[in-house]
Amino acid sequence: MNDQKSGDAYARAGVDISAGNAAVSRYKELLASWRHPDQLDAIGGFGGVFRSPGSSEQALVASTDGVGTKILIAAELRRYGTVGADLVNHCVNDILVVNASPLFFLDYLAVGKLDPQVAGQIVEGCATACRRHGCALLGGETAEMPGLYADGHFDLAGTIVGTVAIAQLPKPEMVAPGDAIVGLPAIGLHTNGYSLARALIPRDEWEKPFLPDGTTFADALLAPHPSYFEAVRAIQRVATVKTMSHVTGGGLLENVPRTLPSGVKAIFEQQRWQVPPIERELIRRGNLSHEERYRTLNMGLGYTLVVPLADAASAVAAAEGAKVVGWIETRNDGEPQAVVYPPRDES
Amino acid sequence: MNDQKSGDAYARAGVDISAGNAAVSRYKELLASWRHPDQLDAIGGFGGVFRSPGSSEQALVASTDGVGTKILIAAELRRYGTVGADLVNHCVNDILVVNASPLFFLDYLAVGKLDPQVAGQIVEGCATACRRHGCALLGGETAEMPGLYADGHFDLAGTIVGTVAIAQLPKPEMVAPGDAIVGLPAIGLHTNGYSLARALIPRDEWEKPFLPDGTTFADALLAPHPSYFEAVRAIQRVATVKTMSHVTGGGLLENVPRTLPSGVKAIFEQQRWQVPPIERELIRRGNLSHEERYRTLNMGLGYTLVVPLADAASAVAAAEGAKVVGWIETRNDGEPQAVVYPPRDES
Repeated sequence: MNDQKSGDAYARAGVDISAGNAAVSRYKELLASWRHPDQLDAIGGFGGVFRSPGSSEQALVASTDGVGTKILIAAELRRYGTVGADLVNHCVNDILVVNASPLFFLDYLAVGKLDPQVAGQIVEGCATACRRHGCALLGGETAEMPGLYADGHFDLAGTIVGTVAIAQLPKPEMVAPGDAIVGLPAIGLHTNGYSLARALIPRDEWEKPFLPDGTTFADALLAPHPSYFEAVRAIQRVATVKTMSHVTGGGLLENVPRTLPSGVKAIFEQQRWQVPPIERELIRRGNLSHEERYRTLNMGLGYTLVVPLADAASAVAAAEGAKVVGWIETRNDGEPQAVVYPPRDES
Repeated sequence: MNDQKSGDAYARAGVDISAGNAAVSRYKELLASWRHPDQLDAIGGFGGVFRSPGSSEQALVASTDGVGTKILIAAELRRYGTVGADLVNHCVNDILVVNASPLFFLDYLAVGKLDPQVAGQIVEGCATACRRHGCALLGGETAEMPGLYADGHFDLAGTIVGTVAIAQLPKPEMVAPGDAIVGLPAIGLHTNGYSLARALIPRDEWEKPFLPDGTTFADALLAPHPSYFEAVRAIQRVATVKTMSHVTGGGLLENVPRTLPSGVKAIFEQQRWQVPPIERELIRRGNLSHEERYRTLNMGLGYTLVVPLADAASAVAAAEGAKVVGWIETRNDGEPQAVVYPPRDES
């Protein structure tokens, strides 16, 4: 269940990875004691899978997530229009990993002092992103909690429920050496690495231009988490997709292994794709190690799909920005499940 | 969707009701523009109702909620064992209003600094309350957000998904003058009124004895939100239940009308049941008006059911503490939908 994250860069930003891992271990113990008979295996743990009531062929897939401390940048800059889409798209991508299509979404908005205009903008962002996926915004809760949240601060979390035919659940056991890994481009940090970003980019720089075209740090930091739903469905129309991964907290090194069988490993060649400028800036400012880069940031890949080599060309042609970013090799005991070969100029 | 609350007592506690109502109006506008074809009417708005994929006879019911500022008392006293049950039971009761039985639950735990022991206790409370309802704890998210939450502070929200046969959805239109209202006892504030309680009972009193048996204010304030699932199912085995209500924020005056047709009103006689001592204490300290009492507090009733008068005796015999607390009358235009007659000694 609950996500885990690692990397020294998190520690530097005040996020304690060993505590996260300890909490996850404790949760696993708690959940090991009983399992509902309608609960199905959740490949990769991006979403929980449950047999749909009244149907032997359909499953429900559910996931809860938050926006993380990206929220603090949005609150500070009073830019409330994008966090809703960040949240919904993140959730859509999570359940897409097990091939589910969204049915409905519920939001949880907690504020110190309720400003109906602000709350309206945030929920409108959720509603618009839901609508784009044909997903009902079925409910939600807005809680005003003076004393827990500072004035102007808020938190936003959400839960998505989607559906997939049980026969259409991915089959990671089909992944074989020689398969290609197709990557879909990340446009920025999405919803991870913001405690690090806030530590490395001080508030007084946020509204300054960052790129030659006038893009500010704030623009780059608040660029919305994209949905990969359409791109994935387009690829699936032309290619056999064996397994997929949403690259969130933990980066390529932790998320891709979650949906691979233990006998294979993923090899990435980073020269095959671009790292977004805002992430290059964080790497430079924080002098992030290779490990930190690939566990804290998405490093330019937001979503990965494993396809047979023969399908790779049609897969990348089916979705804008899609690239072959690596391949699958046999893994021997003790080897890592994901390796990234850096470009020659990596410092 | 999102809950609304009212009463001057909220304003005194720093919770802005007019802002809440304005936010809810804005959400309604947003949601009016599009509705998913599988979305069904959500009686009373306690949970959203959606046709179950792959089944024409079954519906899913979902609800998101938080624990409110009860969280701040638990955090201050480092008593983490009960908030999980508060949350799960609240959610179970919400979907029970449309007759749904829980399938699965997902938690969202947000902290300033992650303490795995504390997180483990909180999630264990959720897991235990889920297990008691045969409900899967299907997933969740634990987010460490330095800068948003103070050290030692946390927020906890959750989403429940349950199921009900579409033919078993309640039929509030069957409610008729002369029907009896059966109430199930509240044991304290449950999860509402805590901003008010914190304003009226200072921190230095919390650990002092409040009742002659040694119960402290903290014990009374942290008494867990009960689940009414078993009691309601027991009543339904012996009585025709036409409509139900979960008495949360907004009290009897706002929650009961949500599940009544417009042509009837609910009449309560408060001498028929007891108000919990902690609520009597808040009334005394805050000198709460009649309106404030019945909109801010549950005043001793946690859940209500409308049954035909002929079934009232067997209904109250079926569940411990159940009482006939009022009745249904014809409502003329302009009349309130819920009225509480105070006991003679009400100040």
